[in-house]
Amino acid sequence: MKLRNFKNFEFVDGGVCAAKGFLANGIHCGLKAGGDPDKNDLAMLYSAQKCTAAAMYTTNKVQGAPITVTREHLQNGIAQAVIVNSVNANTCNADGIAKAQEMCRLTAESLGIPAENVIVASTGVIGQPLPIEPIRAGIPELAKGLNPQGNTSAVNAIMTTDTVPKEVAVQFMLGGKLCTLGGMLKGSGMIHPNMATTLTFLTTDCAISAEMLQNALHEVVTVTLNRVSVDGDTSTNDMVCILADAQAENPEIRTAGEDFEIFKDALYAVLMNLARMMARDGEGATKLIECLCDGACDDKTAEIVAKSVITSSLFKAAIFGEDANWGRILCAVGYAPADFDIQQVNVDLSSEKGCIAVCRNGAGVEFSEELAKEILSEEEILVSVTIGTGAGAAVAWGCDLTYDYVRINSDYRS
Amino acid sequence: MKLRNFKNFEFVDGGVCAAKGFLANGIHCGLKAGGDPDKNDLAMLYSAQKCTAAAMYTTNKVQGAPITVTREHLQNGIAQAVIVNSVNANTCNADGIAKAQEMCRLTAESLGIPAENVIVASTGVIGQPLPIEPIRAGIPELAKGLNPQGNTSAVNAIMTTDTVPKEVAVQFMLGGKLCTLGGMLKGSGMIHPNMATTLTFLTTDCAISAEMLQNALHEVVTVTLNRVSVDGDTSTNDMVCILADAQAENPEIRTAGEDFEIFKDALYAVLMNLARMMARDGEGATKLIECLCDGACDDKTAEIVAKSVITSSLFKAAIFGEDANWGRILCAVGYAPADFDIQQVNVDLSSEKGCIAVCRNGAGVEFSEELAKEILSEEEILVSVTIGTGAGAAVAWGCDLTYDYVRINSDYRS
Repeated sequence: MKLRNFKNFEFVDGGVCAAKGFLANGIHCGLKAGGDPDKNDLAMLYSAQKCTAAAMYTTNKVQGAPITVTREHLQNGIAQAVIVNSVNANTCNADGIAKAQEMCRLTAESLGIPAENVIVASTGVIGQPLPIEPIRAGIPELAKGLNPQGNTSAVNAIMTTDTVPKEVAVQFMLGGKLCTLGGMLKGSGMIHPNMATTLTFLTTDCAISAEMLQNALHEVVTVTLNRVSVDGDTSTNDMVCILADAQAENPEIRTAGEDFEIFKDALYAVLMNLARMMARDGEGATKLIECLCDGACDDKTAEIVAKSVITSSLFKAAIFGEDANWGRILCAVGYAPADFDIQQVNVDLSSEKGCIAVCRNGAGVEFSEELAKEILSEEEILVSVTIGTGAGAAVAWGCDLTYDYVRINSDYRS
Repeated sequence: MKLRNFKNFEFVDGGVCAAKGFLANGIHCGLKAGGDPDKNDLAMLYSAQKCTAAAMYTTNKVQGAPITVTREHLQNGIAQAVIVNSVNANTCNADGIAKAQEMCRLTAESLGIPAENVIVASTGVIGQPLPIEPIRAGIPELAKGLNPQGNTSAVNAIMTTDTVPKEVAVQFMLGGKLCTLGGMLKGSGMIHPNMATTLTFLTTDCAISAEMLQNALHEVVTVTLNRVSVDGDTSTNDMVCILADAQAENPEIRTAGEDFEIFKDALYAVLMNLARMMARDGEGATKLIECLCDGACDDKTAEIVAKSVITSSLFKAAIFGEDANWGRILCAVGYAPADFDIQQVNVDLSSEKGCIAVCRNGAGVEFSEELAKEILSEEEILVSVTIGTGAGAAVAWGCDLTYDYVRINSDYRS
């Protein structure tokens, strides 16, 4: 899918390896019995420099063992490497913590760094013991093969039901120095974030304090990853983390100001596109649904309404059927727990094929079913909902509900 | 499906006509162009006596025109007839109120009663003008054909995507008099209630004041219809109403006390079974999922957890696949916004084929996949979740997520 530009940042290749100083690698270590040998399941990121680091985690009460271990390791705001596996979430297991710690220790040994500088993450089935042997065997090989083009094999390793790899990187100038910020993300089911979502790994060569990095991450995740829903399920293992190795040699960002704003915009350009990619590649999805709500009394109200629309199963199924069943949009707007006057609600549907008004002042208006069908035949659909005359606005992203979502999820563990 | 007994009430046939004095009828008036002539679309209920009446409505901000009109008519707590159509929801239309009022007026004229004593309801597509002509022509015919076995043609008329009619009636003694309470309900998509759900019509020959009737309805709906979710969408037209014509000649229930408790139990026996039927016949469903949460600090906490489990798309899809993927249950328990210790959570799965423990103290326990498969092959699955040692408990009902849900809802308006 096409990247969406934001404030004219220049997109570059390289994902998590785009920023100076970062190496990556991904291998198939064999976590799944009979798994495809071309599908990687273990990845490593590494910077020779100590990085400032920040992260956000799932708000689910059930938290994967890697979350607990990473949270502890990041208390000092410093990290240097990431080890991550797919296939198994290492969650709800008696010995999960010990295994997550071992993954950090082995990674640290293979790189000659302290175990506390390693971030660990896992994604996959919940509640089954993590096979540690293939990981033990794989880590030295993984470390040996770290390379500046390793982003491709690494992003392959974090994919689960994802159908496409998801990487974005941008370049920007700070204090006369060229900076780069890039990342990779995995979806694509159990996606309904609160705090952070899915596994997302970001790297930048920008010099920025751990505190400001955390502030930027929190602010931008709130309006990007936290605005995506695929199925309303908040995962137990969600994590987004960012490492900054200061290799761009810009004046370190330590306070709010112009440089910090530029950095946040770059982070937004990356995470907004990763969020769109994640929604578009939601399990079984054939379409990206973007809902823009404006005219609200504040941004929060707009967010509640936009999220209500993109999480409606009935509306998602209608979009799969390319049916302009706008009554379901209005229904979802109506049950959103927010304060506004339903008699002021206007709804438009649009895509690259055009735009139609389907509802004005809470009631239906006549429209061409033919044009509606044409608009909905596209892969990216925009639903615009105006709920009043206020200045509050928000965008949320989702996808259609399809046969394949059911197929994938009724047959996951096997 | 088998009715579930509650306090040994005796189930009887007759649905909304089971109670003394109630007549019903349903016809095909032709609201859908090219619709099946054997599928009714217009129904009427009638009692020759003025009844005390109570109702609960959807909490969606978008409310169908019939809701507005019925709310006004029931202000005095008196009703005598119900007119209801399927196919079209008469919602989000410029002239919806006038048409809902006309339906009441025509019904009143055909029965020789005041229009204020008529309850009106509609269900179907939102946002399309209601074809009033077939209804105008149908009402006199409907009134003429009212009869004590009319419950069958009436329940046929309120079905939309329902695959089976849903009727229950029970008998009980009050003050030495035999009383009857019965009802009919339509599902089966856009079901995620708050206050009331779907269209439900109840009749009883018990003598009870309008105020106590409203109290009973509120109390029982809260733990029955409001505990069902099919797809998380709260409809714009939900309504549950009850008419009591006092023909059983029991001493009128005007205050709390033993008679009121018996009446509420009878109402529970009817609504709990209608709730189970609705969930089992959720759009595309192949299985009823019942979640019992206990050990909570209070009932509300238990309800939040039970509802979180039965609304998880991932878990619903796993049940369709008959896959004992209990990690998804724990995940849904974990993201429920409620206060408890995840380390104390136990989960069991059961059906008529047996029971297995899948989780103890928040972690997986070994179980026989063979027995799990056998248990999940049944049509009624019970998920028991214990979250502590408190006295709070709640039951919620849902269904699996299937290919047919997607098929039905990607192709609704056509």
